[in-house]
Amino acid sequence: MNDRHLDRVERAGREAEERGVDALIVSPSPDLSYLTGYDPMPLPRPTLLVIRPHADLAMLVPELERPLAAASVEDRVRLVAWRDGSDPYAAAASLLDGAERIAVADRLWGVHLLGLQRELPDASFSAASDVLARLRAVKDPDELEALRRAARAADETFRRILEVAFEGRREDEVAGDLAELLVENGHTRAAFTIVAGGPNGASPHHEPGGRAIRPGDAVVMDFGGELAGYLSDTTRTVVVGEPPDGFEAAYAAVQEAQSAAVDAVRPGVVAQDLDRTARGILDAAGFGDRFIHRTGHGIGLELHEPPYIVRGDETVLEPGMTFSIEPGVYLDGRFGIRIEDIVAVTADGVERLNRSTRDLQVVT
Amino acid sequence: MNDRHLDRVERAGREAEERGVDALIVSPSPDLSYLTGYDPMPLPRPTLLVIRPHADLAMLVPELERPLAAASVEDRVRLVAWRDGSDPYAAAASLLDGAERIAVADRLWGVHLLGLQRELPDASFSAASDVLARLRAVKDPDELEALRRAARAADETFRRILEVAFEGRREDEVAGDLAELLVENGHTRAAFTIVAGGPNGASPHHEPGGRAIRPGDAVVMDFGGELAGYLSDTTRTVVVGEPPDGFEAAYAAVQEAQSAAVDAVRPGVVAQDLDRTARGILDAAGFGDRFIHRTGHGIGLELHEPPYIVRGDETVLEPGMTFSIEPGVYLDGRFGIRIEDIVAVTADGVERLNRSTRDLQVVT
Repeated sequence: MNDRHLDRVERAGREAEERGVDALIVSPSPDLSYLTGYDPMPLPRPTLLVIRPHADLAMLVPELERPLAAASVEDRVRLVAWRDGSDPYAAAASLLDGAERIAVADRLWGVHLLGLQRELPDASFSAASDVLARLRAVKDPDELEALRRAARAADETFRRILEVAFEGRREDEVAGDLAELLVENGHTRAAFTIVAGGPNGASPHHEPGGRAIRPGDAVVMDFGGELAGYLSDTTRTVVVGEPPDGFEAAYAAVQEAQSAAVDAVRPGVVAQDLDRTARGILDAAGFGDRFIHRTGHGIGLELHEPPYIVRGDETVLEPGMTFSIEPGVYLDGRFGIRIEDIVAVTADGVERLNRSTRDLQVVT
Repeated sequence: MNDRHLDRVERAGREAEERGVDALIVSPSPDLSYLTGYDPMPLPRPTLLVIRPHADLAMLVPELERPLAAASVEDRVRLVAWRDGSDPYAAAASLLDGAERIAVADRLWGVHLLGLQRELPDASFSAASDVLARLRAVKDPDELEALRRAARAADETFRRILEVAFEGRREDEVAGDLAELLVENGHTRAAFTIVAGGPNGASPHHEPGGRAIRPGDAVVMDFGGELAGYLSDTTRTVVVGEPPDGFEAAYAAVQEAQSAAVDAVRPGVVAQDLDRTARGILDAAGFGDRFIHRTGHGIGLELHEPPYIVRGDETVLEPGMTFSIEPGVYLDGRFGIRIEDIVAVTADGVERLNRSTRDLQVVT
């Protein structure tokens, strides 16, 4: 746990206070990693960091993980250990004396939230993202640099995948190539590799399978990995030889929607307005009802995190926010198209972290 | 989703009814995988399977994952899609009409549980493990065979790690060797590899680091991987050359405690009694307060799952249950010792899934 973590914890405490939250409870998750650097393996025994405005930091830990936690947080957090066979929620309650409004990490396991609610029947509970979302959404220069490096590694992965053979090979083989390329180009691990050929492309989160890629297939490739703790996430749609009927017009519409939404990014714009921009173009092109997901999602330590580029998300964009812009069109039984880049809001506009060409690439 | 999954869902529905639970809500997790075979990447968009006694199965899915879900569950589950920008909890509530007692998967994210509680303020919520624990704890023959194969692969990993050099090498290098050997010997992936030399062994969940292993070090190695979806988990403690002062007596006590607890396993025994058996031996040897964790945990699709071999767990053992027996002794600043095997309850006793020697091994 370093000074940056302490600063984040202090800001989280201030945000909590401003929102009338008496205590913030954070379990092993990207939230805990962001706030303390501590990132133990998530297991059923609860570990709970407790942040209370104007109070010292405390963390409930399983007795057997006390040395592990101590090595990570040193003397910056008071550790309170609970032993196997005792009630961890009663121990947690002792750290929450007088707390009436409690915010819990979004990813806290339900069984732990139920345990806390049982122990503190008069407290009201809410999601910690109400408090932490803005803090985590605005990346500092080191975080931005990690995201830039991850995006560059993803771009290089796309450049290299264009050199492999597509025709006749299985989706899961190409997905394996992508996973290898992600690591070869600097990621610590591949996080996901969607390869969806032909009609499978109409399923946005298709699981690559045994279907062999054929001439005339559009192939959606959506892939990303982790680098220095931060994630990449990019999508390109290529075509094997001659594109199928109607593909080129749809591709042009998606490409235009993606460019327009990226061009609209700047401080002060509201997240949902970017969604409206992309959707307006696809509506006008006649694909509105075939754009079946939001325009994008925040990215950082998590693949999907606030802000969301979707109707209803009223986040006002600030410099340092990073998110995907990824409109798509999905035609059942025929093909899918998606183009996705990660962008960062700058002081006066936008920086594209992904720079791969968005023009249609023909593969063999 | 196959007939085995349907049978599990039917049994889960019966268990729920017997416990007065009106609806069981299962999110992407080992619970969902166990019940349906569907195992999507866990992301913030909620996917919620709803099991209600005497009603057809339904699952709320994000619109863009409808084809992915349909490919997995086919026509055996009615899919109800929610679109980005709409309220998934309101959509979930429409599947829960009249449900007063609702059990949610232990791993359901807190933010989703809070959303359901907001939508259904009069319902009472509990943990699904109350309903599912016994069902999942008793393994069927195929599950037992997968656990046996994983245990054998872990045993072979231990046999092979005895051939490598320990002295002068860093803990994280030996941990890397273990990870490679786990995969070489049949695991799909290494799940964890603890290597803790000398005083680091006193931290049961030590994160392997840069400390070089020295002559006279005891080295605790706790490792496991995934094979056909099921996990291995075994621990052995070896010594580099001459053991440190007091080590041999402590090792003998741990070995005796482990053997006695394993020998006590049979149908009808209560889980916590195995903990008492192991603890009694370590107490008598003077190490009672240095055995700082429970004796064991269930294992299957999850590394840690019910039953727990700990004071307070009154599970009556049944044939097919699988769990670890892993007493340990931890002496701060000096060394740690742990010996862990996975066992299965048989019709009239116990089967050790791990067969590696438990006698002290001296390495170089």
